[in-house]
Amino acid sequence: MTRLARTFQTAPAAVPREDSAKYLDSGLRAEGFEAPDWLVPDIEDGTAPDVKAEAVDNVVARLPELAPDFGGEIWPRVEWAHDDPDFRDRGHEQIDRLVAAVGEHLDGVVVPKVGRLSDVEAAAGVVAEAEREHGFDDGSIELAVIVETAAAVSDLPAIARLGESDRLAGLVFGPVDYTADLGGRAMGGDRPRWDGLLERLSNEASAGGLVAVGGPFDRLFDERAGVTYYNAPGYADRVEREARIGLDGSWSLHPKQTAQANRVHMPAPAELRSAVEKVEGFNEAKEAGTGAVVLDGQMVDEATYRNFANTVETVRAIDEVHPTQTAEAYDEPLLERARSVTVRFG
Amino acid sequence: MTRLARTFQTAPAAVPREDSAKYLDSGLRAEGFEAPDWLVPDIEDGTAPDVKAEAVDNVVARLPELAPDFGGEIWPRVEWAHDDPDFRDRGHEQIDRLVAAVGEHLDGVVVPKVGRLSDVEAAAGVVAEAEREHGFDDGSIELAVIVETAAAVSDLPAIARLGESDRLAGLVFGPVDYTADLGGRAMGGDRPRWDGLLERLSNEASAGGLVAVGGPFDRLFDERAGVTYYNAPGYADRVEREARIGLDGSWSLHPKQTAQANRVHMPAPAELRSAVEKVEGFNEAKEAGTGAVVLDGQMVDEATYRNFANTVETVRAIDEVHPTQTAEAYDEPLLERARSVTVRFG
Amino acid sequence: MTRLARTFQTAPAAVPREDSAKYLDSGLRAEGFEAPDWLVPDIEDGTAPDVKAEAVDNVVARLPELAPDFGGEIWPRVEWAHDDPDFRDRGHEQIDRLVAAVGEHLDGVVVPKVGRLSDVEAAAGVVAEAEREHGFDDGSIELAVIVETAAAVSDLPAIARLGESDRLAGLVFGPVDYTADLGGRAMGGDRPRWDGLLERLSNEASAGGLVAVGGPFDRLFDERAGVTYYNAPGYADRVEREARIGLDGSWSLHPKQTAQANRVHMPAPAELRSAVEKVEGFNEAKEAGTGAVVLDGQMVDEATYRNFANTVETVRAIDEVHPTQTAEAYDEPLLERARSVTVRFG
Repeated sequence: MTRLARTFQTAPAAVPREDSAKYLDSGLRAEGFEAPDWLVPDIEDGTAPDVKAEAVDNVVARLPELAPDFGGEIWPRVEWAHDDPDFRDRGHEQIDRLVAAVGEHLDGVVVPKVGRLSDVEAAAGVVAEAEREHGFDDGSIELAVIVETAAAVSDLPAIARLGESDRLAGLVFGPVDYTADLGGRAMGGDRPRWDGLLERLSNEASAGGLVAVGGPFDRLFDERAGVTYYNAPGYADRVEREARIGLDGSWSLHPKQTAQANRVHMPAPAELRSAVEKVEGFNEAKEAGTGAVVLDGQMVDEATYRNFANTVETVRAIDEVHPTQTAEAYDEPLLERARSVTVRFG
Repeated sequence: MTRLARTFQTAPAAVPREDSAKYLDSGLRAEGFEAPDWLVPDIEDGTAPDVKAEAVDNVVARLPELAPDFGGEIWPRVEWAHDDPDFRDRGHEQIDRLVAAVGEHLDGVVVPKVGRLSDVEAAAGVVAEAEREHGFDDGSIELAVIVETAAAVSDLPAIARLGESDRLAGLVFGPVDYTADLGGRAMGGDRPRWDGLLERLSNEASAGGLVAVGGPFDRLFDERAGVTYYNAPGYADRVEREARIGLDGSWSLHPKQTAQANRVHMPAPAELRSAVEKVEGFNEAKEAGTGAVVLDGQMVDEATYRNFANTVETVRAIDEVHPTQTAEAYDEPLLERARSVTVRFG
Repeated sequence: MTRLARTFQTAPAAVPREDSAKYLDSGLRAEGFEAPDWLVPDIEDGTAPDVKAEAVDNVVARLPELAPDFGGEIWPRVEWAHDDPDFRDRGHEQIDRLVAAVGEHLDGVVVPKVGRLSDVEAAAGVVAEAEREHGFDDGSIELAVIVETAAAVSDLPAIARLGESDRLAGLVFGPVDYTADLGGRAMGGDRPRWDGLLERLSNEASAGGLVAVGGPFDRLFDERAGVTYYNAPGYADRVEREARIGLDGSWSLHPKQTAQANRVHMPAPAELRSAVEKVEGFNEAKEAGTGAVVLDGQMVDEATYRNFANTVETVRAIDEVHPTQTAEAYDEPLLERARSVTVRFG
């Protein structure tokens, strides 16, 4: 079945207030479209240095109660840096502690600022060691890395190939650190979009059988004529661009972003309707012995068919895990056609 | 001499009508600007499963009569898929049958849906085996592959290097399967353009001494205010974009597309005139002992010169094979200058 | 300290007039913003074949007098071509002569038209040999290569890795030869921008610890309504695009271009002010125990902080070498804050 990773929501695992696990709890308790496919308790850059220990404690304390009812996957982000052994040591300790205490609730660990292939292999080795040490099956705890250094991008094809045989399961883009690592400058207020790199990330993830996720969108709020508003259009544009090139999901910093990205990474109703019709139409043409058919002025052959089939398959995967989302997004007769049409690939 | 590959026209080798070779015949009999540089009898996705055997029969039956008078190259597209042995077996049989029966009329074989380097090597091996088996000289039947999987793109530099020593002669982009393989979505109706990938395809083809061809443009017809028309502007824009980045040719699905792509991949009259003038002007400056000269406000040196020389060389190659095309495209005095100017590189 | 390479100004080392070293001299004597960070006496494409010997003579004759007072680095560009042994032989002789005669005034040698990794290694070997032969310390004369062939781009990650252990110090883009090598065409007057390649050049340079420089902008002058003018906006747009993606510098063909590129590759006053404020604000937040802070509606955490720190560091490097430039660009109180703020990375 299609693995869902529409949303990669980071939540600081500790914040300096009375209820330091506030964001962690609300991420694990989110409902409907605000429930992320992947929740990422953040022990790295979103958490202040003096509460990092508390951040690990919070994850250890909250998961036993909240993880069983959380529908998505749980992926803590630990500390790491390919060019700094202190960060790697802290990451090592954090991974060991988390796997020991709550390994049964983790789908994997997110490791940031990885460098060349050998550094990613080192991170995978740390996870493997913790797994072994604490009695989990080989490969039961996966690895996702944040691609945010020139070194990692230089080795991207080799790193992604680890997905063919290894515990590596996901590639996530980190544009802020990446831009800094290249010495890029936000001239006129905008960072580069790094379109070419995102397309390569999507390619290598597909080639290696990995999930690919875009970077955070930090202009959460915008202002026009003196009024500050939640930047819904800016984030939606970004997420749509990511969906178009085949990224599986988008990074979310806020429940509203999660609600938007979950929707964008679902086929739109018109898209699902068109896909269902093209699949049905092509199936009929096929039975009538034709290899290609023109539907709505567009030639559909074995090749184009696969696109439409993918759309149907994605809806089915969401429908299985989040039936309230599909019930809200599509009308029932269309949904029923999507559930029942014969899909020959996918 | 410059190898011409301005047009890569696929024609279904069998269609379910009385005259099942209709499109194959008309491709081989096309004249003037509608004659493609490469005709690709399609046994793969353009041909329905139940007429695939007939498609191979048609190619075998028609080439002996029509190939000798066809000016361009003939490259059947067979079945193949890096991730499906059944497809590879069928491709193997089709290649063997075609080489055995009409090998002397083939310039090469087009293999789609190739994967990593090892899969391309396997396809090359199948062609080599058929060549040997049926008594053709080594390398007399070449290979072009359709680049349309994440795996092939991941290995693109290594695959293209096969061109340095091997029978590999061309790289062709397949955007529909490629987008599907990455899980991309046509949001708002448009697929991604994959500009970065096309530039890399052009680079690797040049580095390996291969021909590079863009993908099919399937919005053959468009509609405005209730009227459907042949989408001449859409296709011309696409082909121009491909020519600009150094692709040698464009994919054609229709004689009108072939006529357009043949023209776009010829230098425009003003472009030829400017190139001839810059080459003549630089030659004079050179004799006068200057390494760089400003012509029309643009500095021309040894480096820029090569661009202009390429333009002249391309026109000469077309003029040799298709004199009716050059006679129609350029006025005679300009053409004569292009034929006679001294070109020092290229 | 940050290595400055904001400007890579080529000057023909000999021109066919009475004072054949005119441009070389004026490059070495330039002051203020017209003084390039790197001056590149050009013995290659900017110099006519019949004055190439004189070009080498001029470099040998002028450096002893002018180099000591020139604030920037000096990098002659010699002849070379990966696919032509005659050019490589001439490059070999030129490098040997220059190192023998004026090696103590050279920071490195620029080698154009390199091919695959082995060709870059060959160029590095020639420099190493000259260094040894003429008694200079190992690595004292560095190498920068012009990336302008499909072969070099195909091997770019491997070439850039030479920077980790070798004398390679810089990658410079050569768009004219590159476009010609790929068979690209300037349709409608414009060459492709090769954005994807420039982003990869920036990435690989950062990964290998190299300086990256964009290509020359040859439309020095433009014309509107019958009036020809220095194309200041065209060049500024180009240089800004290069700065945004993290290229360290831009190619200059003229002192006015040098003045512009030196300025663009300096942070703008508002950019410096914002960076100083974000660094100060984050430092305060950090002391107050917070890992992230919202400043001007933008979240600043450890990751975004690095961008701002880089901006401050660049200004400090320029201030140290060219205090007249920083004095002209920034007001004194801001400059003083930039000099004194605590920067924890960079």
